[in-house]
Amino acid sequence: MNDYDVIIVGGGPAGVTAALSAKNSYPDKRIALIRKENNPMIPCGIPYTLFSLKSVEENILGDAPLAAGKIEVINGEAVDRNDHTLVLSKGEEIKYEKLVLATGSNAVLPPIEGRDLEGVFLVKKQKDYLERLRVAAHQATNITILGGGYIGVEVADELSKAGKKAIVVEMLPHLLATMDEEFSLKAEQILTDEGAGIVTGKSVKRILGNKKVEEVELNDGTRIKSDMVVISVGYRPNLDLIKKLGVAYQEGRGVLVDDYLRTSEKDIFAVGDCAIKYDFFTGDLTNIMLASTGMAEGRLVGSNLYSIRVVRQYPGVLGTFSTKIGNKAFAVSGVTEKRAKEKGIDYTIGTSKAVDRHPGKLAGASEVYVKLIFSTYSHTLLGAEMYGGDSAGELINMVSVMILNRMTDTDINTLQIGTHPLLTPSPVAYPVINATIDAIVKWFKH
Amino acid sequence: MNDYDVIIVGGGPAGVTAALSAKNSYPDKRIALIRKENNPMIPCGIPYTLFSLKSVEENILGDAPLAAGKIEVINGEAVDRNDHTLVLSKGEEIKYEKLVLATGSNAVLPPIEGRDLEGVFLVKKQKDYLERLRVAAHQATNITILGGGYIGVEVADELSKAGKKAIVVEMLPHLLATMDEEFSLKAEQILTDEGAGIVTGKSVKRILGNKKVEEVELNDGTRIKSDMVVISVGYRPNLDLIKKLGVAYQEGRGVLVDDYLRTSEKDIFAVGDCAIKYDFFTGDLTNIMLASTGMAEGRLVGSNLYSIRVVRQYPGVLGTFSTKIGNKAFAVSGVTEKRAKEKGIDYTIGTSKAVDRHPGKLAGASEVYVKLIFSTYSHTLLGAEMYGGDSAGELINMVSVMILNRMTDTDINTLQIGTHPLLTPSPVAYPVINATIDAIVKWFKH
Repeated sequence: MNDYDVIIVGGGPAGVTAALSAKNSYPDKRIALIRKENNPMIPCGIPYTLFSLKSVEENILGDAPLAAGKIEVINGEAVDRNDHTLVLSKGEEIKYEKLVLATGSNAVLPPIEGRDLEGVFLVKKQKDYLERLRVAAHQATNITILGGGYIGVEVADELSKAGKKAIVVEMLPHLLATMDEEFSLKAEQILTDEGAGIVTGKSVKRILGNKKVEEVELNDGTRIKSDMVVISVGYRPNLDLIKKLGVAYQEGRGVLVDDYLRTSEKDIFAVGDCAIKYDFFTGDLTNIMLASTGMAEGRLVGSNLYSIRVVRQYPGVLGTFSTKIGNKAFAVSGVTEKRAKEKGIDYTIGTSKAVDRHPGKLAGASEVYVKLIFSTYSHTLLGAEMYGGDSAGELINMVSVMILNRMTDTDINTLQIGTHPLLTPSPVAYPVINATIDAIVKWFKH
Repeated sequence: MNDYDVIIVGGGPAGVTAALSAKNSYPDKRIALIRKENNPMIPCGIPYTLFSLKSVEENILGDAPLAAGKIEVINGEAVDRNDHTLVLSKGEEIKYEKLVLATGSNAVLPPIEGRDLEGVFLVKKQKDYLERLRVAAHQATNITILGGGYIGVEVADELSKAGKKAIVVEMLPHLLATMDEEFSLKAEQILTDEGAGIVTGKSVKRILGNKKVEEVELNDGTRIKSDMVVISVGYRPNLDLIKKLGVAYQEGRGVLVDDYLRTSEKDIFAVGDCAIKYDFFTGDLTNIMLASTGMAEGRLVGSNLYSIRVVRQYPGVLGTFSTKIGNKAFAVSGVTEKRAKEKGIDYTIGTSKAVDRHPGKLAGASEVYVKLIFSTYSHTLLGAEMYGGDSAGELINMVSVMILNRMTDTDINTLQIGTHPLLTPSPVAYPVINATIDAIVKWFKH
């Protein structure tokens, strides 16, 4: 029987990060990572395995960091435990002192008639499956995507750029429904300009075909010619193993964890998509699943396996996303206006538009639009949404740092930032500051 | 006699921002901005007026925001005051309740023999002057730049890209001496690859020529063939008016101001390059002059003209720069290793290198290198340096927000950031976090 100090189950970003953090924090411990997938994927790179990358292979989350940390990788499937011993599917038993669950999530397959037809795919995370998806996408002409969230839209963008006729079907009134309407409209415009079709406010009744998919039928009877269908309606925590371990969990939500990601069982932790998530602002449950969140959790758990070293407990999921559609980056952090309304938050909006080079006539300039949401009475920044050039990918992270530090309007108004003609908007137009000023002016008028 | 509530002297970024902030904060006040330059330049855009922009005209700091704010613009030169009345050069008198000085800085002309020869230029901020500089640069072939700071290097980069033979001469051992050596070396490599010449550790003895410049002679006797010379050895506060107003100032340093940018005279404020600057970490005097710093000051003063509304006093100059040399962005915020040594700060370094797309085989990927400096005992982040793709321009601002909030290693280790294949490094490799972990590992080993 093998014997380790720390075992991590799951080879995705949260698991790898927990393993590396454990090694950094406790260099003398023997650490192993058990994973089902021999070639784990970079999750957010998956849509780009269709065309942008030369092969699915290029999207493998490499083992170099694990090897450098001398973390043993065991390819296998954990299926049960006896006290501090983990049982693998082939009967092997492995002892541990500390166990970290990072089993991730699986793509949801909704109960739609025709979902088993040839040519109907999910956006799974397995390399072999994605290789079949890639081949099918290269061969197909008319591809219908069911679900207009981030993944669905990224797939539609990727397909459209490759010259495929992609149509996205979304039940809600707009694509990217986690963002406010003006951002959805912008994204829809870009997809339309690329030649993609968009159907919103309609649901799918069934998928039709004779062995192979031929059409998608909507609830209003419309039929969309489709030689391929990609279903992308969300992910659900993978609790297969977890249900056997005796840890408390909530069906469809994940393993219950405390502020230090500790489960109900001593010496067992959970991180990433399989762990339940609490909202940063209201503390209620949230369904946000992000690699970057899982990794923050992984780093906290890795540091705190044997004792609470990092006392800053986990503040809940802020929810910082970014994506790129056409040539525009879109990003969100924290509360949107839509969510503020849902959650009953009294808010004040500030907006600003600029060009991300100065003067704007310099090459590479792209319009950037920032919308900030402040608490009307405590004046703290609650959230931000933006679209812009590629650097919006880091600009949203700046805003995340602001929100996590509970900065207020006046903090941001006197912020010292760097600007450069070839890299950022003009300091006079800097949109995060100017959107803040827009909110401040509303307060002065109050 | 004209009569205003608030008068701002100076039409650069600090002055314009103070005026706009005053208008936002006190919408009923009558506000005027007096400026000598009818067409003020965007200061950091100046190097790019040589070739990247189609004309110097394109670099004018536009009046649209002032017009939108109904701020009156007076083209004229203030030369003196009587109590609350400002006197212009043509004898006109203008009354004010509050006066904001934003007279900026002037390029330093060192006492080098031959500096008056035709073809010798400074990097001034006046449009007419820059138009002559542009014409000369287009006509010249061998251009020697005296001074290898940011501006000198930007000019060399701009000239080299345009096919000119540029040679930079710097007295110190390296170009960009405000950064640590590894960054200087990288910048020097890029300039060399572009075909620029670099001479470091040598000073200029004299400029030679018969009416027009022909050669630059160094202290070791070497002569550099030059049909044009650009001197870029720094800027000094413009105190011409200030010396007549009775406010306290320090020669070569600027107007003395308190934490709210108030001068020794009631109702007179100073912002931007003409105001004295204190270091964020040590509180001592610093020579850093940045548009973005001046604008943070302008916003604070504009809000607080009639009473202290924004109680957060000015924390001192953090010093956040960014620039681009060749295809690489370079950026600094806060304390460098070099400065930590000078100031006697006990520090711990963390570094990390990554590719700013993930997987790294995606188009547009650029290597990014981040060096962080932490206080060894209080564990707060003190500074960052980096080079990378264009998004380093916003990444450095994220780090600035971290430093201003006095975040520690563990705060950063559990940070929630957003990542996306087409926009940022992989979450596993995110260099600001991984550089922090590099420092943490040193602490664990301690």
